[in-house]
Parts: sequence; structure tokens; C-alpha cells
Amino acid sequence: MLTGVQVLMLGGDARQLEVIRKLSELDASVTVCGFDGLHSSLDGAVHAGFEEALFENADALLLPAVGTDDNGQIHAVFSDLEIVLTEQHMAKLPSHCTVYTGMAKPYLKQLCGQFGLRLVELFDRDDVAIYNSIPTAEGALMMAIQHTDITIHGSQSMVLGFGRTGFTMARALHGLGAKVKVGVRRSEHFARASEMGFEPFYTGALLQNAGNIDLLFNTIPTMIVTAQIIANLPSRAVIIDLASKPGGTDFRFAEKRGIKAMLAPGLPGIVAPKTAGRIIAECLAQLIMDDTNKRGNGI
Amino acid sequence: MLTGVQVLMLGGDARQLEVIRKLSELDASVTVCGFDGLHSSLDGAVHAGFEEALFENADALLLPAVGTDDNGQIHAVFSDLEIVLTEQHMAKLPSHCTVYTGMAKPYLKQLCGQFGLRLVELFDRDDVAIYNSIPTAEGALMMAIQHTDITIHGSQSMVLGFGRTGFTMARALHGLGAKVKVGVRRSEHFARASEMGFEPFYTGALLQNAGNIDLLFNTIPTMIVTAQIIANLPSRAVIIDLASKPGGTDFRFAEKRGIKAMLAPGLPGIVAPKTAGRIIAECLAQLIMDDTNKRGNGI
Repeated sequence: MLTGVQVLMLGGDARQLEVIRKLSELDASVTVCGFDGLHSSLDGAVHAGFEEALFENADALLLPAVGTDDNGQIHAVFSDLEIVLTEQHMAKLPSHCTVYTGMAKPYLKQLCGQFGLRLVELFDRDDVAIYNSIPTAEGALMMAIQHTDITIHGSQSMVLGFGRTGFTMARALHGLGAKVKVGVRRSEHFARASEMGFEPFYTGALLQNAGNIDLLFNTIPTMIVTAQIIANLPSRAVIIDLASKPGGTDFRFAEKRGIKAMLAPGLPGIVAPKTAGRIIAECLAQLIMDDTNKRGNGI
Repeated sequence: MLTGVQVLMLGGDARQLEVIRKLSELDASVTVCGFDGLHSSLDGAVHAGFEEALFENADALLLPAVGTDDNGQIHAVFSDLEIVLTEQHMAKLPSHCTVYTGMAKPYLKQLCGQFGLRLVELFDRDDVAIYNSIPTAEGALMMAIQHTDITIHGSQSMVLGFGRTGFTMARALHGLGAKVKVGVRRSEHFARASEMGFEPFYTGALLQNAGNIDLLFNTIPTMIVTAQIIANLPSRAVIIDLASKPGGTDFRFAEKRGIKAMLAPGLPGIVAPKTAGRIIAECLAQLIMDDTNKRGNGI
């Protein structure tokens, strides 16, 4: 339980509603800012205006998926309020307060560093990234079904990268009956992809493997689907790039060649905000609980 | 090969382009009517106006998915031409000519009967229905991903019916990690669903199984998702009805209760026209070839 724990949540979207629900269930005292435009009730959380005093007793400060932008502004879809996080706010936080966000821009990292505050980037965690790969893969399937005139079943699909997202993507395609090639860089990934019934190849041989691809899913966040690769894809191919912005595809050349190519970041919050919210909520609840127990034990 | 075989195709959509391609590959003489608005070439098929003379030498008459409407009109998406099939046309057809369509309305059945012409409804065939169940299931998945805020993975899904479409639908959901309940009427379906790792129940016990469903896919073409069932579904449930029009759902009551319910017939031609066209093309080519061989052998 989180009885007595003071949580301050600033901004966010539908995902944060699941977080509020979960933390309230665990009896935390949740104060929220940036939800004034929401019509439904907030499971016992307290609405507040954006004031410095809010920060004084916070044991945990929760920020949305992208903590702040480069100028400290916090995205709040349920509010017209402008919420900008500054030094003045951070200076009020108790030294034991942990700042949680999905991913942090340099602005936020710098602020936390300046005040010696612990910053946790949830999307960096392996468990969160693996859970998030599920809605990501489903969103990518949805796009593939929408943007092709063939079925995924029986298609020649390719997944680049066999990390947390590539693994899930390959399994989802395989589950629907696609033939799945997986581009890997490590021999243990080659072995695992082979064991799972995929057709692995080393990304160094990507060009030789591009000839007959219907669907290409990239998860590698460096320029890998180059103009040369795109020139060798069949014209019917569709590229769905799941890597973080700016992706790993030469979109300009794809457009020139008339090949459909789409950058699709942030799919979990778009296609399954409830599930994506639960993923964050479960993880956060556990982390705040661990943190509280440590403090309680004087660690 | 189909050398010398005269095929007359009237109307249709993108699917028919695959049929033209396939039959031309096999060297049939294909005459098409209702493709005048198409900008790309037609793989050697001959365009013609809609004239009675076209019918005189046809060995096979190909009509689109829904052969004609109740007044004999043939749907042709690539033409503004009005194509209405009448007695005068049918009277010109050689007696050995076979009429192929997806499904036939009474108007077409009556006409074929009147002139003693063999009528083949492709969508009635088990093989075609099984192949078509693949794009149907993928289209249903797409809708499910679009219309829920959760992932299919981990959802409690229900499939009603374990025939050609229900079987595929249950496998696709299972492949993505859903928990899948399958409503069946026959003990052998119960056994098979159990063997495949689904949770089968008899449709007589549907009400008792409705309590915790996130996604309901119906494939049974009689009123089965009644107001009483809908009243017992959780409000978050989404119903996707894949049965032929008018479906098996009380849509009026679903709307009244605020439960999303969608009738989704004809998904193959919408989400995967190329694959759907190939399914028809492969089947048609085989049937016309068999028919030609029989005639050649004097049977």
C-alpha cells in the first residue's frame, strides 16, 4: 500500500488516468494538475492549480510520456493551462523526491541533476519496453492491414532488429501466418530467431535480402533502410518504421520512389491508451512502493 | 492452359483485375465490359461495350462478388456504364456456358434456371470460404485494434461459431495473445477448440459466458447476440459481427446500451483486394480448366 505517500502528477493524457486509478487504489495521496478539462471523476485524486506550494511535500513527481519539451513545457491534453516546469518548482521538492517520466529531454535531465533529484525514465526500463512492444506491434499490424491490398498471412515480411520490439513484432507476424525474415546483428539473436521459426539474416546482408519483401518493419534507430536498400525493394513494399524519431528510413527517397513509408512512434498511447496506461501504472506503483519501503527502512 | 476458351467478364472491382491477370496468363480469351474507367492496362483482355453479341461465344460468364442486384444490375466500380443483365442476354449464351459469381441473388438464380445454365457461387465453396476467412479475420483484427483502448493481447475475446471463419478468427486472436472463448454448437467443435487451446462453451450457455468479455466476434448468421446477451456484456465490450447481412446482433439494443457494435461484411474485398482477387482467380482458373477438360472429353 502507499498510504501517506504524496504523489504530484503534472499533465499527461488518457494513460495517466490509469496511473491515478492504480495509485488511488493503493491509498496514495494523489494531487493532479492539468486535468481540469476532464469530465469524468478522478478516483479520489485532488485537482490543483499549478503552484509552487504543490511541490513542497511531494514524495514522487510524475510527468507524462515525454516529461517536458526543450523549454520545460509539460504536455497536458486535458487542460488549456500552460504548465512550465522551472528551477523555482524543482527547488521546492524534498531531496528524497523521485521524478518519474517516460523519457526525459536534456532540459529535464539538467534540472534534476542541478537539484540532485533522482530521475527515472520508465521507457528505458526493459520490462516497460517489453510490455509496450505489445501495443506497438498491434498498431503496426493495424497499419500494415490498412496500407496494403494483401493479407499479412502469406506475406513476405521483414523485421529489422530483434530487441524488445523486434522480437514481439516478429512473433505477432508469425502468429498471423506471415513468412518472417529477421535482420539481426548478434549471433545469439540469429540463433533465437532461427529457433522460433523465423528466417534470420545478418543486417550486413540486408541488400541481398530486400528483393521480395511485402512488408518491412524497422526497429533499429539508426539509418539502415537507406536509399540503396529502398531502390532494391519491390515497388509494392510498405515500410513501417517503429524506431524512435527520426527513425531508420530514408523517407525522402522512399517518397521519390513511390514506396509507402511511415514513421510510427508512440503507438501504445495511440492504439491502446488504456493498456499503455496500465503498463505505466503497474510499473510506477511498484517503483514508488519500493522507494517508500527503502525510506521507511532508513536506507 | 485455357487456350481458345472464351471468357466474358461483366463488371467488378479490383479483385477482378487479379482474375483477368490469371486467366490471361493461362491464355484464355478474356473480353471485359465495365472496365472503361480503368487507367492501367488489362493484361491482354479486350474491352467491349455491353452488347448482346458478346454473349454468343462465351464458354464462361464471370460476374462480380454479388452477381447482380435484385433488378439485374451488375456493380462495376471502374465504369459509369449501366450494366443490366436480362433474358435477352442470357438467351444468347451457349448451353454449355457456366455462370460464375461470388453469391447469386434470386434474380440471377432464376435467369440461369430459366435457360438451363449452370451457376457456380464461389463464396459457397468451402475452399474459397476458408481462404476468404483470412482477410476477414485480419480486417476484424484491424477494427478491434482501432475501436478499443486495450490491446488484443491479454484481452478476453469471444468468437461465436467455429466454422470456416470462426476457426480462423479464433486462431488469429490466439496468435496475438488473446484469451479466446469459442461458442460452439457441436461436440466435435467443442473438442477441437479445446485441443487448440481455446476455451469452448456451448452457445446455449452464452449468457453465462458474457460477463467479462472485451471483444466479441460473431460469425453465426442468426440472431444470437440478443438484447439479453448485450445487457450482460460489460459496457467496455466491442462487438464485431462478421456474419452475412443483417448479422446476428441486436444492433438497435447495442446502440441503446452504448455498446460499440459493428456489422462488417465483405471485409476481404476491402482490406485485401489483391489477396481476395487471387483467391477468386485461383479457384476460377481451376474450375474453368476442369470444365473445359470435361467438354473436351465429351462429358
